[in-house]
Amino acid sequence: MPKFLELLKNYPKKVKLSDLGEFGFIDRIARKYPTKNPSILKGIGDDSAVISLSEGLIVLLSTDQLIEGFHFNLEITDGWKLGWKSLAVNLSDIAAMGGVPIGFCLSLGIPSQRISIEFLDDFYKGITSLGERTGVELLGGDTSEGGERLTISVSVLGKASQGKVIYRQGGKDGDNLYVTGYLGDAALGLKLLKKGVYKKGMENIINRHLCPEPRTRTGQLLAERGIPNAMIDISDGLLADLNHLVNQSGVGAEVNLCLLPLSTEFRAWAAVYEPNPINLALRGGEDYELLFSASPEKSEEVDRLSKELSYPITYIGKLSRKIKGIVVKDEKGKIKEVQPLGFDHFRDG
Amino acid sequence: MPKFLELLKNYPKKVKLSDLGEFGFIDRIARKYPTKNPSILKGIGDDSAVISLSEGLIVLLSTDQLIEGFHFNLEITDGWKLGWKSLAVNLSDIAAMGGVPIGFCLSLGIPSQRISIEFLDDFYKGITSLGERTGVELLGGDTSEGGERLTISVSVLGKASQGKVIYRQGGKDGDNLYVTGYLGDAALGLKLLKKGVYKKGMENIINRHLCPEPRTRTGQLLAERGIPNAMIDISDGLLADLNHLVNQSGVGAEVNLCLLPLSTEFRAWAAVYEPNPINLALRGGEDYELLFSASPEKSEEVDRLSKELSYPITYIGKLSRKIKGIVVKDEKGKIKEVQPLGFDHFRDG
Repeated sequence: MPKFLELLKNYPKKVKLSDLGEFGFIDRIARKYPTKNPSILKGIGDDSAVISLSEGLIVLLSTDQLIEGFHFNLEITDGWKLGWKSLAVNLSDIAAMGGVPIGFCLSLGIPSQRISIEFLDDFYKGITSLGERTGVELLGGDTSEGGERLTISVSVLGKASQGKVIYRQGGKDGDNLYVTGYLGDAALGLKLLKKGVYKKGMENIINRHLCPEPRTRTGQLLAERGIPNAMIDISDGLLADLNHLVNQSGVGAEVNLCLLPLSTEFRAWAAVYEPNPINLALRGGEDYELLFSASPEKSEEVDRLSKELSYPITYIGKLSRKIKGIVVKDEKGKIKEVQPLGFDHFRDG
Repeated sequence: MPKFLELLKNYPKKVKLSDLGEFGFIDRIARKYPTKNPSILKGIGDDSAVISLSEGLIVLLSTDQLIEGFHFNLEITDGWKLGWKSLAVNLSDIAAMGGVPIGFCLSLGIPSQRISIEFLDDFYKGITSLGERTGVELLGGDTSEGGERLTISVSVLGKASQGKVIYRQGGKDGDNLYVTGYLGDAALGLKLLKKGVYKKGMENIINRHLCPEPRTRTGQLLAERGIPNAMIDISDGLLADLNHLVNQSGVGAEVNLCLLPLSTEFRAWAAVYEPNPINLALRGGEDYELLFSASPEKSEEVDRLSKELSYPITYIGKLSRKIKGIVVKDEKGKIKEVQPLGFDHFRDG
C-alpha cells in the first residue's frame, strides 16, 4: 500500500503531537471548543481571554506554564529571576491586550528533595518584586510535591475598559507595523548563557533572557489612546507572532530588515561573533516586546508616546492585503518570502 | 552543643519543606505577602481569591494543579475522567465561596512521547463535558512538553454579587455545622482502586474518587439565600478542612460521629471489610462536598434546600467558643480531642 494511503487508513488513530505541533494542537482545540457564552468576547486564540462581566468593564485572564528543563534551567538562573520571569511572561499577555493587571494565582509543583526553602523564598521575592512594581498582587495558588521537575503555573487576572481592548485580529490593509524596544536580545542572552560566555557589558542582554521587563504601561497607554488596530506580544519570535497577527487579521505583512531595532550591545556582539544576527532578531523568542499595527495617521502619536516613555517604538514595515503571509525586504530592497517559524514545543523539544 | 541549640543556630538555613508541611508553607507565604490593594477583598487563605472590580460585582479566581503520580495515576483513571476531575476540583472552590463559575484556563505539560492525541482528546471531552453541564467554558491556556509527568493546571474565573460571598472566617459561636452529600466515599473509592478490588455495585464509590461532582448549584443557592456564615469545600478531609474554618473563625467545633452522613454503599462495604470507616469519613480527602456553619434559626431553610435539591445536607455538630480546636462526640456520648490532620503533600508524599 502506498505510504500516504497507509497514513490515511490509520488517521486519526496515529496522529502524533509532534505531527500537529504546538500551534496545530492549540488550533485544533480552539476549533473544537468555540465559546458560546455571549459575555465571553474572546476565548482561545489571543493573548488573554476577554470577558465582559458588567457594563463598561472587561475582565482579562491569561495562563502560562514554565517547566524545568523546557522553559528554564536552574544552572543558568536563580530563584529570584525565575520568580520575576514567571510573572513577566503573563503580564506581557495582559499588556498585549492593553489591559491593567490586578493579581495572579501561582501553582507550584516542587521537587521537595532538591528545591530548598531558600530557593523558594527567593522565588517569591522575585515574583512579588515585579508584582509591586506593576501593582499586581499574589491572590492565591496551589503547592504540591512535583517529582522530577519544578513546574510553575501562573494565571494573571486583569481588567480593561469596554471598547479599549486590542485584539490580534484588528490589523488593516495599509497599517504601519511597530515594535517596542529591541529584538533578539533575549535569544542572544540565552545563547551566551548556554555557551557559558560571560563578557562584561553583556549583563543587560543576559537579563533580557532571565528577567524580561513586561511592557505593561506601554500596552495600557497604547490602548487608552486608541492607537493600535491589532497587537500581540513577542514571545515566540517576531515572525511567528507576526504570523498570528496577519493570519487573524486576514492581511499580509512586509518587514523591512534594515529597520529592525537592535540594541547597541547586540550590534557590538554581532559585529564580532554572530554570523546571523538578523535571524536571531526575526526568530529568537522571548523578547516580550509588543508588536502592533496602526493606521499611518497615528504615526505622530506613536512617536510622541515613545518620547514620553523614553523607550523606542520602531516602525518596521506594513500590513497589506496584496501580500500573502509575510515577506521581508533586505538591505538591497529585494523582497523575499519567509517561513514564519519560531520555537515549537512538540517539534523542537 | 545540645541538639535544640544546633537547630536554632542553623535556623533558618536548614528549614525543610517537609518540616513546614504544605499548609505551613502556604501560611508562611500568606503572612509574608498580605494584599494591599483595597479592591482585593481576599487573597491567599480562602477557597478562591475575591476581587471587587465594579459596584456590586465580585470576581473570583482559583487555581489547582494535578501532577501525575501525586494527584492521579493513569493506571486507574482515563483521559475523560481525569479531564472532568481537573475542572471539578476547581469548580468546588468557586462553589465554596457561593460563586457562579464562568470559564477556565488550562495549562498542560505533556510527556508527548507517552501521551497520545486520543488520550488528550478524551481529556478535553471530559473537561468540557463538566464545563457544559455547569455553564463554564474553556477560555485559553498553555501547552508544552512536560517531561516525565503529565501536569495539569486549571484556573477558574467566577463571579458573585457583592455581600453574597461566603468566607471561611465567618463561623459564629452556636452555629450549626452542616455537610452536603456523603463523606468518605472518595477515599474508599481510591482504596478499592488501589487494591484492584472491583465489586459490582461499587461503581458510584469509585466514580466519587475519579470524577467527583462539584456542588456548584448548592453553593450558589446557599449563598443567594444568605444561609451560611462560613463555608469551605472538603478537599483535604472533613477534619482538616473544618480545622481551617474554625481557626479562621476563632471558634471551636464539636462533631457528632453518629451523625456523619455515610452512603449506603459505604456502609455496606464497611460492615464487612473496613475496620475503621469513621476514620475514612473524618480524614479521607477529596469528597469535594461543602462544609458550612449557619445560625440555628436557618435550620428549616437548610432542610427546605436539601429537599429542593433532592440531596442530603446533614447537621453534624456545632461551633462553640468554649471549645478549643475540634472535639468529636462518639456513639457513647464521650467527648474526645482529635488531631485535625488530613493529607499533607510535603509530609506524606
